Amino acid sequence: MKREIYMDYAATTFVKPEVLKEMMPYFTGYFGNPSSVYYISRKTKMAIDKARKCISKVINANKDEIFFTSGGSEADNWAIKGIAMANEKRGKHIITTEIEHHAVINTCNYLEQHGFKITYLPVDKFGMVNLQELDEAITEDTVLVSVMFANNEIGTIEPIKEIGELCKKKGVLFHTDAVQAVGNVPIDVQNMNIDLLSMAAHKFYGPKGMGALYVKRGVKIDSLIHGGSQERGRRAGTENIAGIVGMGKALEIAAQNMNKESKRLIYLRDKLIDGLLNIPDTSLNGHEINRLPGNVNVTFDFADGEIIVMALDDIGICVSTGSACSAGAIEPSHVLTAIGLSENGAKSSIRLTLGAKTTEDDVDYVVKTLGDIVLKLRENNKKWNERMH
Amino acid sequence: MKREIYMDYAATTFVKPEVLKEMMPYFTGYFGNPSSVYYISRKTKMAIDKARKCISKVINANKDEIFFTSGGSEADNWAIKGIAMANEKRGKHIITTEIEHHAVINTCNYLEQHGFKITYLPVDKFGMVNLQELDEAITEDTVLVSVMFANNEIGTIEPIKEIGELCKKKGVLFHTDAVQAVGNVPIDVQNMNIDLLSMAAHKFYGPKGMGALYVKRGVKIDSLIHGGSQERGRRAGTENIAGIVGMGKALEIAAQNMNKESKRLIYLRDKLIDGLLNIPDTSLNGHEINRLPGNVNVTFDFADGEIIVMALDDIGICVSTGSACSAGAIEPSHVLTAIGLSENGAKSSIRLTLGAKTTEDDVDYVVKTLGDIVLKLRENNKKWNERMH
Ligand SMILES: Cc1ncc(COP(=O)(O)O)c(C=O)c1O
Ligand SMILES: Cc1ncc(COP(=O)(O)O)c(C=O)c1O
Repeated sequence: MKREIYMDYAATTFVKPEVLKEMMPYFTGYFGNPSSVYYISRKTKMAIDKARKCISKVINANKDEIFFTSGGSEADNWAIKGIAMANEKRGKHIITTEIEHHAVINTCNYLEQHGFKITYLPVDKFGMVNLQELDEAITEDTVLVSVMFANNEIGTIEPIKEIGELCKKKGVLFHTDAVQAVGNVPIDVQNMNIDLLSMAAHKFYGPKGMGALYVKRGVKIDSLIHGGSQERGRRAGTENIAGIVGMGKALEIAAQNMNKESKRLIYLRDKLIDGLLNIPDTSLNGHEINRLPGNVNVTFDFADGEIIVMALDDIGICVSTGSACSAGAIEPSHVLTAIGLSENGAKSSIRLTLGAKTTEDDVDYVVKTLGDIVLKLRENNKKWNERMH
Repeated sequence: MKREIYMDYAATTFVKPEVLKEMMPYFTGYFGNPSSVYYISRKTKMAIDKARKCISKVINANKDEIFFTSGGSEADNWAIKGIAMANEKRGKHIITTEIEHHAVINTCNYLEQHGFKITYLPVDKFGMVNLQELDEAITEDTVLVSVMFANNEIGTIEPIKEIGELCKKKGVLFHTDAVQAVGNVPIDVQNMNIDLLSMAAHKFYGPKGMGALYVKRGVKIDSLIHGGSQERGRRAGTENIAGIVGMGKALEIAAQNMNKESKRLIYLRDKLIDGLLNIPDTSLNGHEINRLPGNVNVTFDFADGEIIVMALDDIGICVSTGSACSAGAIEPSHVLTAIGLSENGAKSSIRLTLGAKTTEDDVDYVVKTLGDIVLKLRENNKKWNERMH
């Protein structure tokens, strides 16, 4: 029998059985529209309220600062366009980075086509934003800084608290795409001076199609989805009750386990990194320490990432090249090129992300298997052979 | 024991057990990100494909014309803003009606604040749009006509085929908010010359937080949610696989049953209408024939709609005043005032919407109960007493 190993938790996670169990009553049983006045709707209103409270606590926000969305992409689009439109008359400059998720980058590109000015900050070879450069980029016209909490490809965790402080000092709003961070690393929006924060439930064992945007009290933001008065008039649409309940439960579990689980994952991650770096001509992408607990990203010189991923798939191991969200695209990852990899280097890289079901045994097996695959590929690689002989 | 009768199917429906059953494997089991290349994702990619095909068939569209969204509100926002932005340079005039759902009205209001010109067409006392008036409203600058397929409050079905023909003749795009119609009445986007059509799964026994926008091939539309290349690059965000599968199954069932079920509902609806009109000083809102199978909307003079709804709630009957989506608002329904009701008349109206579980017995019981409640309320009403004695 084929052994199945999933090492693509950063792309998406399964829904935990405890989470699904919590969701179940809200499909066929308690299904009342929370906007209605009658009794069967009170139950759903209360369930939403409970989830909102739970989520707000985990990031140290207030309940009324959490707005449910259909996922991370909607949250990012809303944060950026909503702030841009609400502040159009104050200024039309936004600062972000070169390594953001496409949900941020493409939103910024879109605004650029409509009269906004966007600065895409470069990062260093570890994927870190430079505070000095950010400071210098802020002008009179800047209304928003959007820097991701942790990168989805290379796992680098940005200096969010310092960025928050700088933005506060300069009087500029600060949004962070925390889709990869929420549930994995501690977040405190007050202490970190975060004004807007995006999250997505399917990255922490909640359902897909569910996310949230934290919007600090007093921050003026235009709606992205207009209509009914749901989410205190800021995000229209009949609430996805089961999804909201699942998201709340999933984050509750993640927060309870975070300390222990992140230690476990860091141990496995570092073991995986060490094992892979023993393969010759292999290098780690991203930061060694400021790194998501479950993220490994490596470049195998003289080997093609796509082919490695397919070879692993053949034997039941799921990993990814670049970001899963932009798959189908044959271009090298914009994140890897931003940290200085050549096109070839980027195309020789793979991402392995660990999570709830990953065991030490899995790590050993993957190290061994990958070593074999990479060796075989290189034996067929002309350049490698030229260099070797 | 309290008898429970749900007569608010237009607000939302429960998820049918067969639908939920179809969704279940995609939470904890087949959860792979469809954008990934490995085997566990092929299953989810195929499931999405199947649902898309199924939905497209029901409205006679092509598979590649269906784009999944998080619900009806997102679909409406996307259709209107997406067309407005994509055609900004061609013209900035949009025509809609006074009786649209807030997801359309508030989106148009928002565009109005940003330099677009919106015409809100009046309707007749049955809620019908006048074709001649629509014709006259179209100018050189008009890029979009948005007229709902069927009204959510009064159930009136608009002359969609005629509107489609007119728009085609005039070279103007035609969007219809069919959230209340899909699954309840036959729709043929080709025959009806519809360019864009919004739907929401939770109105036809599918999951909440799921919808779709049909966009005819060749129609240029800007994205509302930018990011990854999901939905052929038009709607970013990791796919809500379970939701998509549920929507597909729910619409498949609805389409299979439509003929029989709509006859059954029309019978019950007309029985309910007849019964209620036997209560003195009661009138029907909306069109007698061009009407959604499950919709009843009546005005009880000298009685307060809110109080009726609460009295019914007390004994286990769920109905609504105005539209559930704008509940919490104390303003009289914009739909009822648009068809000529006074503020008082609008506030004396309630909506009862029938669906899968409604029985003839329920109808009889509700007629009887409502008669008693209305009589009692009127006995306490000074104006009524003055008139009576
Ligand atoms: C006619 C109409 N349009 C749009 C919507 C919005 O749909 P959703 O609540 O799924 O976003 C509704 C639902 O109430 C509706 O009845
Ligand atoms: C950093 C980051 N931002 C945003 C997103 C988009 O989230 P979703 O796919 O839930 O819309 C992702 C998911 O791939 C992500 O990793």
